[in-house]
Amino acid sequence: MILTVTLNSAVDQTWIVPDFRIHAIHRSRRVIRQPGGKGVNVARVLSALGINVCATGFVGGQNGRWMTKALESDGIPSDFVWIGKETRTCLTLLDLDHGTQTEVLEPGPTVSEAEWKQLVAKVATWAEQSSFVACSGSLPPGVPENAYGELIGVARSRGAAVWLDTSGKALQHGWSARPDGIKVNQEEAGHLLGKVVSSRAETIAAARALVRDIGQTVIVTAGSQGLAAVVGEETFWVTPPTVQAVNPVGSGDAFLAGWLAASHQKKSGEEALALATACAAANVLRETAGIEKQQVWALLKEVRVEKVID
Amino acid sequence: MILTVTLNSAVDQTWIVPDFRIHAIHRSRRVIRQPGGKGVNVARVLSALGINVCATGFVGGQNGRWMTKALESDGIPSDFVWIGKETRTCLTLLDLDHGTQTEVLEPGPTVSEAEWKQLVAKVATWAEQSSFVACSGSLPPGVPENAYGELIGVARSRGAAVWLDTSGKALQHGWSARPDGIKVNQEEAGHLLGKVVSSRAETIAAARALVRDIGQTVIVTAGSQGLAAVVGEETFWVTPPTVQAVNPVGSGDAFLAGWLAASHQKKSGEEALALATACAAANVLRETAGIEKQQVWALLKEVRVEKVID
Repeated sequence: MILTVTLNSAVDQTWIVPDFRIHAIHRSRRVIRQPGGKGVNVARVLSALGINVCATGFVGGQNGRWMTKALESDGIPSDFVWIGKETRTCLTLLDLDHGTQTEVLEPGPTVSEAEWKQLVAKVATWAEQSSFVACSGSLPPGVPENAYGELIGVARSRGAAVWLDTSGKALQHGWSARPDGIKVNQEEAGHLLGKVVSSRAETIAAARALVRDIGQTVIVTAGSQGLAAVVGEETFWVTPPTVQAVNPVGSGDAFLAGWLAASHQKKSGEEALALATACAAANVLRETAGIEKQQVWALLKEVRVEKVID
Repeated sequence: MILTVTLNSAVDQTWIVPDFRIHAIHRSRRVIRQPGGKGVNVARVLSALGINVCATGFVGGQNGRWMTKALESDGIPSDFVWIGKETRTCLTLLDLDHGTQTEVLEPGPTVSEAEWKQLVAKVATWAEQSSFVACSGSLPPGVPENAYGELIGVARSRGAAVWLDTSGKALQHGWSARPDGIKVNQEEAGHLLGKVVSSRAETIAAARALVRDIGQTVIVTAGSQGLAAVVGEETFWVTPPTVQAVNPVGSGDAFLAGWLAASHQKKSGEEALALATACAAANVLRETAGIEKQQVWALLKEVRVEKVID
């Protein structure tokens, strides 16, 4: 099975707002509420792919109760640590006519030291029966700066491989703990390496430079251009299918889910990259985070994975 | 006492978002949640002014439970009809640096016929002990088009005077039932009369024309310009204080609350208009709907009420 960790979970609200403008009054066509936070999105796609998964992290208050109930009714197993404060809400204001997505994230609730310790213990327990642990997203106030470093250490000591998908300081600290794999975008890769990462050649070079530090798998995404991946001794460039994006929120998480699902099933790096990219493309076709399995299979044929030889 | 009726209540969320832009990702500085809907805002200001009040209308689901608890802890008495569906949420995205307020309203939940009948019965019961009933805001799906007309009839037959503050079809129907007072803006007055209402002279003429139809009190607001009021035989023009607006959401409701509070205490039309205008001005100084009583007293000195003689 696979464990996903979401330290800064959220109730994601997608508001469909025609002709969205600043300083105006709008009537939303409809509002879609969904359990969210990056790790929860990963768990949703893993579950849709038929992988045995458990979502953990922190939840609290009325939003937390709503979230765990909604996950249950969606058939996504979860085992969260309950905190004293209220789980946050994140908004996406989607103007389908103009193709804009405006996101507003609420600050996360503060987590106490005791709650953090409970989370570490929970990750340790679940890691024992997991092939992979996915650590995704930002850190809420109150957890140590090196939260991901600690979790990487704990999960690995229990035999699980740990993937990290975060940014900023949380990434820098987690990075030092040498996760088994990371997925970063060009900007984050640039920060880690102290250089600009923009072209295809720079993206490939960045993935190779980063893999030298952690010695495992590194994926550097380049938006709609594609992505570079170094898997063991091999380097790949992946070109995604061209799709008409509806809402890109959660597509990076769908990517990681596809990658982990294939890896869990002992597929090759090439196959895993193709499934991951198809999942990401399927995710942007929907109004909310998640995939339709049939769309993934259709898109899979349009993904191009090339081995980079030089 | 005074009864406020909110058929389309809402949890109002005010998101403080620095540098708010379309198609960007923002971290909100903080989110303020408040029981809302126009009648609930009226009740909040009446309560702050020390008037005995009760808020009724429809609430449902998790948002409804949150709302009634929050009203209770704010000391605002309420007696809502519980519906099967979930109370909606309304967003205000407040960019304090650029002085913009972007509002997004969720569609209201559908109300059943049985729930509507319960509401009519509740209004009848409370109207017996009320001097005024304030009917504010839009109609949710499911209630009759002439909902306000029915409530006006029921409340008046129990001895209460009814004020109406709504728009569109709900206003047209309510209007036909001859409420004891209405507050409309220039645009709504223009719709009722079938002409453009823009200048001070047109605003005064509109208030006089409207009062001929219902024979009671009519207030036509003209934004920051001021407002025209016909109270019995007298016509007034009111110039509000100049204030630096933070968030105007709820200022029309604060106005109505000030008017009703003064009327309930048998103050003159002139005094009631001054208090109402000071309440509206105090409301825009805050991030959320409501007033600070001390600000109202300070602003009261700066309101100019002139009798229009011609």
